[in-house]
Amino acid sequence: MTQLEAARAGKITEAMEQVAEKEKIAVQEVCQGVARGEIVIPANVRHENIQPAGVGKGLRVKVNANIGTSTAYPELAPELEKLAAALEAGADSVMDLSTGGDLPAIRQEIIARCPVMLGTVPVYQAWVEAARRGGHILDMSEDELFAVIEEHARSGVDFITVHCGVTSQVIRTLKEQGRVTDIVSRGGSFMAAWVLHHGRENPLYSQFDRLLEICRQYDVTLSLGDGLRPGALADATDRAQVAELLVLGELVDRARRAGVQVMVEGPGHVPLHQVAANIQLQKSLCQGAPFYVLGPLVTDVAPGYDHITSAIGGALAAWAGADFLCYVTPAEHLGLPTVEDVRAGVIAARIAGHAADIARGLPGALEWDRAMAQARRALDWEEQLRLAIDPVRARQVREQRNQAGAQACSMCGDFCAMQLVADYLGKDFMPC
Amino acid sequence: MTQLEAARAGKITEAMEQVAEKEKIAVQEVCQGVARGEIVIPANVRHENIQPAGVGKGLRVKVNANIGTSTAYPELAPELEKLAAALEAGADSVMDLSTGGDLPAIRQEIIARCPVMLGTVPVYQAWVEAARRGGHILDMSEDELFAVIEEHARSGVDFITVHCGVTSQVIRTLKEQGRVTDIVSRGGSFMAAWVLHHGRENPLYSQFDRLLEICRQYDVTLSLGDGLRPGALADATDRAQVAELLVLGELVDRARRAGVQVMVEGPGHVPLHQVAANIQLQKSLCQGAPFYVLGPLVTDVAPGYDHITSAIGGALAAWAGADFLCYVTPAEHLGLPTVEDVRAGVIAARIAGHAADIARGLPGALEWDRAMAQARRALDWEEQLRLAIDPVRARQVREQRNQAGAQACSMCGDFCAMQLVADYLGKDFMPC
Repeated sequence: MTQLEAARAGKITEAMEQVAEKEKIAVQEVCQGVARGEIVIPANVRHENIQPAGVGKGLRVKVNANIGTSTAYPELAPELEKLAAALEAGADSVMDLSTGGDLPAIRQEIIARCPVMLGTVPVYQAWVEAARRGGHILDMSEDELFAVIEEHARSGVDFITVHCGVTSQVIRTLKEQGRVTDIVSRGGSFMAAWVLHHGRENPLYSQFDRLLEICRQYDVTLSLGDGLRPGALADATDRAQVAELLVLGELVDRARRAGVQVMVEGPGHVPLHQVAANIQLQKSLCQGAPFYVLGPLVTDVAPGYDHITSAIGGALAAWAGADFLCYVTPAEHLGLPTVEDVRAGVIAARIAGHAADIARGLPGALEWDRAMAQARRALDWEEQLRLAIDPVRARQVREQRNQAGAQACSMCGDFCAMQLVADYLGKDFMPC
Repeated sequence: MTQLEAARAGKITEAMEQVAEKEKIAVQEVCQGVARGEIVIPANVRHENIQPAGVGKGLRVKVNANIGTSTAYPELAPELEKLAAALEAGADSVMDLSTGGDLPAIRQEIIARCPVMLGTVPVYQAWVEAARRGGHILDMSEDELFAVIEEHARSGVDFITVHCGVTSQVIRTLKEQGRVTDIVSRGGSFMAAWVLHHGRENPLYSQFDRLLEICRQYDVTLSLGDGLRPGALADATDRAQVAELLVLGELVDRARRAGVQVMVEGPGHVPLHQVAANIQLQKSLCQGAPFYVLGPLVTDVAPGYDHITSAIGGALAAWAGADFLCYVTPAEHLGLPTVEDVRAGVIAARIAGHAADIARGLPGALEWDRAMAQARRALDWEEQLRLAIDPVRARQVREQRNQAGAQACSMCGDFCAMQLVADYLGKDFMPC
């Protein structure tokens, strides 16, 4: 029984209990949210060491960190370091996007060390295997794709990104319309190329029921990928993107009917003034399914700083209703992230998520800020560092710039506003 | 004649011509904006090497970088390095907030090297001088304060922050209401302490005409400081803040009547969902005066990353109408920024400003992003690096993570979406 099936039957699962406890809400609320499909709990029945978490309406905004090897960097060890860094920085989810090295072995090692939900994009492995057979990646057969999906499900993956919406009709919409950056999603571009090359419909769409059957068996949550997410502001919210979203909305219905948990992925590169509309559109077209966004990046011009461009868009998106933020690291658009990039990416996304939690009125969210403000007012440095979203980094900066034991900080030194006010504002007021 | 007086007389100044050229708008538009007080051109008649820029409605959002010595770090050399870094990173404005070392000499050195508008907070020098006389900083007399203001004006400072709105009545509002962090503005806390200590009205308010006379003479733009800006989300948009803003609105009127250019400063720490309201309130209460915000920081809990918390708030604020963003560096709340922090702060604020320029529909803003997207599509790396908001940093990351000459980046390597799509999408469409 999947979490969705259980919820519909009114059955409270252990995972729901754990989610309710973490979120400090009633378990009935979690159960009803899952039953409506507005909350998902991605927790594969075979992912033994998982501590289940929920994604969706009324819950804290979650943050995902992508890791994984590539052909240029196929080694496992650095990716395990990134996994540890992501977890230490507070990631709620990790995706293994490996395309280099021994993919099944890498995935198993990551799952074994991953107490948070773990996602993958199975088609990557399917095309790598096709290429390794000596052919072209597009030689991948439909059966091979589904075999890999089943392998991922069996190995304990909690959610899979599948680009089911890149249908021949959606590709036609894209071609007729034109775009500056065409397709920037790896999975999306592969599926489009496969469809064009073989002259056949996208099997993830035409055989969607086969996909659902696998997911239902292991309670794998479907993450419907937005293969046509805009890769540039100029392409945002265009007909191709929305045409795909219409397909995804239809598939959300079908997944729910089959008892399969489902969320929907979203952009991408979106200008500030279109972010809220994108979220509202998805929520409306996809019947309130949890929304998992990559960014959105609010400008294209800041390679090296895309954790910041996406923190801006992510905060706004989550405030408007996005539930799950995929981090973007400073290395985005330039190369594979380092361990330090992973840390920076997770923290930036967590800042965005927390800012949105406050704006959404999540119970308890503002209390963290209030505690920090009180520690500031008291010039209690140990408490400030303890409460910092990244205590390690905050302590580093503090210690580099200040003499040990200094009460104020080196920015104001003797002229600390807090100290001055403490001296005077507490006294009886002398009217002028 | 100040820019404002000239504009009212229908006279096009050289500074207006330069602003119109930089902004690619008609000079009449600039002139009319200045005449209405919706645009300021902070350019002291004595700041010889300045290249004038405008701040306000219809213009590109501008970014200020704060530099300056403190008692713990009184040396000039590191601050000159920060000045150079800020200019290289694209700051439109610099504020010298020095409180350590030989303040007049430091200011002169900075002005001499500063081709962008330069701001100061004269009261800092006034209290430092009072303290150096062997007394308490609050021993500063009213005449000493105005003497320092005149000294700053004579030396070529383009705009001065003056906390005129910290009146005895506003302080009473603050005390009656209570706050988590009371006053966090250095100038604001000093003026409040001065008022309470001496039992006299804030001279910057009671002798506002004296201030106007000095500013008119050198065409110094007034930047009306928000001494009671919230220092915590819990204090945002409270009665104390708004009471001060009401006073500032009144002073905007008086400054304009006297022919003095004026802008208004704003928060501070503000939750995401209150940012737009803060901007709208200021624009309404202050008759469309240009708005200069510090942040806003959308959460209190991220010391070490406040360039990011403020980029989120700054983008939203500027989209809602703020015209001028004061950078916040990663060192905020922890210590004096390093050269590297200055660079990070300027770039983060520029990202926020540019994202807002796009959202506000500033002519030409989106073209930069389109050019970058086209370079990405063409896998033209040199052009991408050239167009990056920080070309130095982008090149660094690119070169660290990729083999020289690689066409794709190391993130996708052989499986580059752009390449795959280029191979297939261009072909004739094969319908399924």
